[in-house]
Amino acid sequence: MSSTHEEFDPTASSLAGQVAPEVMAELLAVRSSIDNFDAALVHLLAERFKATQRVGVLKARHQLPAGDPDREAAQIERLKALAEEAQLDPAFAEKFLNFIISEVIRNHRAISQTQNPAASELNDQS
Amino acid sequence: MSSTHEEFDPTASSLAGQVAPEVMAELLAVRSSIDNFDAALVHLLAERFKATQRVGVLKARHQLPAGDPDREAAQIERLKALAEEAQLDPAFAEKFLNFIISEVIRNHRAISQTQNPAASELNDQS
Repeated sequence: MSSTHEEFDPTASSLAGQVAPEVMAELLAVRSSIDNFDAALVHLLAERFKATQRVGVLKARHQLPAGDPDREAAQIERLKALAEEAQLDPAFAEKFLNFIISEVIRNHRAISQTQNPAASELNDQS
Repeated sequence: MSSTHEEFDPTASSLAGQVAPEVMAELLAVRSSIDNFDAALVHLLAERFKATQRVGVLKARHQLPAGDPDREAAQIERLKALAEEAQLDPAFAEKFLNFIISEVIRNHRAISQTQNPAASELNDQS
């Protein structure tokens, strides 16, 4: 096993010793699910960034702009609708996608800058 | 089928008509995977917020503070290590968790305010 699993303490809490044991047990049970969701989220995000990395290389090769406003608008509307169906706050889903997209655009610009140092300024219209 | 799937146009793009068809085909193929990852991310986030909602109710009932610095520090170290293993930028994983945690703390405060209007100011030490 990696050092991650040896070092992480799932019971770490600033509340230790300050709450009744049964309350702490209930808290830790929910936190254990949160930790599983977080591991899944990190692995999904890693795959999502591998995909956008491929988009970044493709865009740089063909000197296409880092952002794509029509695509982003369609993504946001879709994710808000999916969030509503899943009982997630649609406003949060929109903030989340904007947070991801700004990281992606930053990465696209970096790839383009590496591959086309002279042209990247011209093509960065987003 | 819901209206989400009827209305979303996976080919929406500000680049339409401006790039060679084979480049657009390659772009759309990767975007189709990104759309699948995004649907999975939204559903996982919905479950994660259901779990933190349970934590929020528990904390409000026992008048515990919204934030838990030792827990958050442990989560961040774990997620950075998991990100590294999954080839995701650990700095991004940290930004992502901080983004989620600030939303969670905002929600915890709102729950506490509803359940203990007088006490919530005192207990909000994070």
